[in-house]
Amino acid sequence: MGGPLDARLYGVGLGPGDPDYMTIRALKVLQRADRLVHFSKKDKRGNARTIADAVVTPDSEREIALVYPVTTEIPADHPDYAAAISAFYEASATRIATEVEAGRTVAVLCEGDPFFYGSFMHLWRRLAPRFPIEVVPGVTGMSGCWTRAGAPITWGDDILTVLPATLGQDEIAHRLKSADAAVIMKLGRHLPKVRAALAAAGLLERATYVERGTMAGERICQICDKADDDAPYFSMILVPGLGRRV
Amino acid sequence: MGGPLDARLYGVGLGPGDPDYMTIRALKVLQRADRLVHFSKKDKRGNARTIADAVVTPDSEREIALVYPVTTEIPADHPDYAAAISAFYEASATRIATEVEAGRTVAVLCEGDPFFYGSFMHLWRRLAPRFPIEVVPGVTGMSGCWTRAGAPITWGDDILTVLPATLGQDEIAHRLKSADAAVIMKLGRHLPKVRAALAAAGLLERATYVERGTMAGERICQICDKADDDAPYFSMILVPGLGRRV
Repeated sequence: MGGPLDARLYGVGLGPGDPDYMTIRALKVLQRADRLVHFSKKDKRGNARTIADAVVTPDSEREIALVYPVTTEIPADHPDYAAAISAFYEASATRIATEVEAGRTVAVLCEGDPFFYGSFMHLWRRLAPRFPIEVVPGVTGMSGCWTRAGAPITWGDDILTVLPATLGQDEIAHRLKSADAAVIMKLGRHLPKVRAALAAAGLLERATYVERGTMAGERICQICDKADDDAPYFSMILVPGLGRRV
Repeated sequence: MGGPLDARLYGVGLGPGDPDYMTIRALKVLQRADRLVHFSKKDKRGNARTIADAVVTPDSEREIALVYPVTTEIPADHPDYAAAISAFYEASATRIATEVEAGRTVAVLCEGDPFFYGSFMHLWRRLAPRFPIEVVPGVTGMSGCWTRAGAPITWGDDILTVLPATLGQDEIAHRLKSADAAVIMKLGRHLPKVRAALAAAGLLERATYVERGTMAGERICQICDKADDDAPYFSMILVPGLGRRV
């Protein structure tokens, strides 16, 4: 198992947080790639890099940190945000291309699954026309969360709706009303709005809050039992389906 | 990494098919559990068991096959189906409980992620009140499929809708119309109906068909280019989102 590294660039899903939920393929790529690239916020260590701690010894020559110029300081729909983040991905792609063209294999570390709301997609879009890229799928953050919460998410013919908490309150409430099962991602500072949307959809009683699922500092409770509105970026809300039990 | 086997019963997600997409934790449980339980259809080898071939040598003493009494012979909403399948899960739970009570650790092999449309959920529901159960999340079949299709599924604020193909044509079309990104699972004999629903929603051009994603015999094409309506159970349709590219 494991296989050789035939591609030149890798987007490696590292799973939801617990390094034991890394795939065998991800482990092999982490062990063998010449360069390890990870995203981080200013003055913070990236979460994907932290997951990799279990198998990667820090090595300043081997590692490349890509530091976001902005995260939540500017709204994502503002033109200044788009300009800053677009320039960042362009520069990051150029930096990675330089490494690949020098003959090195480069692995980009990704939380969860790279093709599910992943930052890596913005690099992939720019570099896939130039180099063979292998994407290694990962266990999503939401799978990690519903597993730890003991909350099977979809039963029988349940429809699952995955909603980013960045949407408007009415839109979230509207979508929740027609959902069988739902996951609300990227919670962060949007929790008060999401709580109101859950209430409007009559789903407060069915909603579970999961913070840092499968990671150190994991916290799980019913949303009704959560007294404050503090939620880190790595938190989500689960509404398990009520479909066919046999 | 890996850790001890502290629980007595395990629901182990083995991922989408390629054994390299198994997690480190799944590998450890497969290697160490006293009994390996897998579901199969009559006269067929179970797909989860096939995924485990890479790490598990056949051993008639160690392995327990649970054979579904019915699969697609009776519609899932028919009372006879519910009766047969419910009796099957009851008997299966009893069989597993006997092994656990005899002091053996038991691992139930699951395709994909156990808590995402998984058969294991029906055992978990019956046995969780009796024994400590560890569920090992896995890479979902859909993650495997969108990875192999080179089709990042959700961008920016895209809402993802996951639909079982077992739903009615109008329901599927209605849900597709309001979806940003969509996955249609459990395709099988429902492909003609799903094709009609995609046409009604104006999404035929955006839909990709993936058969046996990450497994031997993988086949990927645009749904428009698929001339026949043959689709195995392990096939799905992906409609990638068009959300924010930066």
